[in-house]
Amino acid sequence: MLLCNVGNTNANFFDDGKISSMDIANFMSYVPKEKVYIINVNESVKDKISSNSNFIDLEPYFELECDYVGLGVDRIANCYAISDGAIVDAGSAITIDIMYQGVHLGGTILPGLSFLQKAYSSISPRLNVGLNTQISLDSFPQNTLNAVSYGTILPIVLIVEYMSKGKKIFFTGGDGEFFIKFFDKAIYDKTASFRGMLKIIKEKGL
Amino acid sequence: MLLCNVGNTNANFFDDGKISSMDIANFMSYVPKEKVYIINVNESVKDKISSNSNFIDLEPYFELECDYVGLGVDRIANCYAISDGAIVDAGSAITIDIMYQGVHLGGTILPGLSFLQKAYSSISPRLNVGLNTQISLDSFPQNTLNAVSYGTILPIVLIVEYMSKGKKIFFTGGDGEFFIKFFDKAIYDKTASFRGMLKIIKEKGL
Repeated sequence: MLLCNVGNTNANFFDDGKISSMDIANFMSYVPKEKVYIINVNESVKDKISSNSNFIDLEPYFELECDYVGLGVDRIANCYAISDGAIVDAGSAITIDIMYQGVHLGGTILPGLSFLQKAYSSISPRLNVGLNTQISLDSFPQNTLNAVSYGTILPIVLIVEYMSKGKKIFFTGGDGEFFIKFFDKAIYDKTASFRGMLKIIKEKGL
Repeated sequence: MLLCNVGNTNANFFDDGKISSMDIANFMSYVPKEKVYIINVNESVKDKISSNSNFIDLEPYFELECDYVGLGVDRIANCYAISDGAIVDAGSAITIDIMYQGVHLGGTILPGLSFLQKAYSSISPRLNVGLNTQISLDSFPQNTLNAVSYGTILPIVLIVEYMSKGKKIFFTGGDGEFFIKFFDKAIYDKTASFRGMLKIIKEKGL
């Protein structure tokens, strides 16, 4: 069974446990030869998906207890897989959603690491320094590279801690694995959205 | 006595207590008729300033006790004016510097509000929603506008609280006034950099 989660930058596939990725430009010329269960948050590929009957859009089937208006289907799928905890999906955007006993309590959106780097560069060429991924958050920065790295990573760490309020923290998404070292107790859960998709496929007998 | 602080987006003037602003494009055609004491972090106006003897560049005169390599002269001027506390300069970039008894302990750099907004828009048109400046940080967001606003403001509030460790917090810069409502004890100090400039002018007899 082939699953696909289309984001703003990449389309990620799940083929019986095997994960692979395709950028959106390539996805635009991708023709499925079999049934593909799909979720998509990218406006630019909507028509492509709806015009091929091999794509089975799962979005209409999800039923999540939730007051959030306009929750993206990628976040819904994550929340469907993880019924308790903070779910941090770190991709183009970083979304943080709080689940408690299967109920979505709310969530937020931050720019992802690569877009934060672009923001620094566009403020001033002096801030186009990259990211020190080994930065320690325990002492104040003493140069521009560390000031930018600390200013990129620490606010994200602090808001995740603040919102999770001691709950279990699950990171997913392309940059998810990078973040877990900054937390005492955080898990990298690569397949959350796909497990959410498998769950709804099973529940609805699709 | 005319002072000028040139940033990445605007040049701000201080004329015996009166503050005015000019964007960089206009500043490029500005010809001073009198002596202008100046600090500048903008590479693109460096030649202009050095080629007119009416501009008195204060950068070489500052002596701040500091281990930070490459601290911008705007931050140095702020720190020269405020010898104890956290100094948050919220402009194109947001810089946070920690001073203790006249010594600079370190600092960090974040993208400013307008550049964060641009980052959201460039991730997805869905995130081009603006900023709810009245957002409450006390409850989890339940729609995209509030998710983006919370994700913009709360990480900045949390890192300022984290770094200030109970010290007095001084906000300055164009967006500085906006932030003080999110803190129990924070002061908007519009003229910090100019007071730092006046201090060095007096000390060095310029």
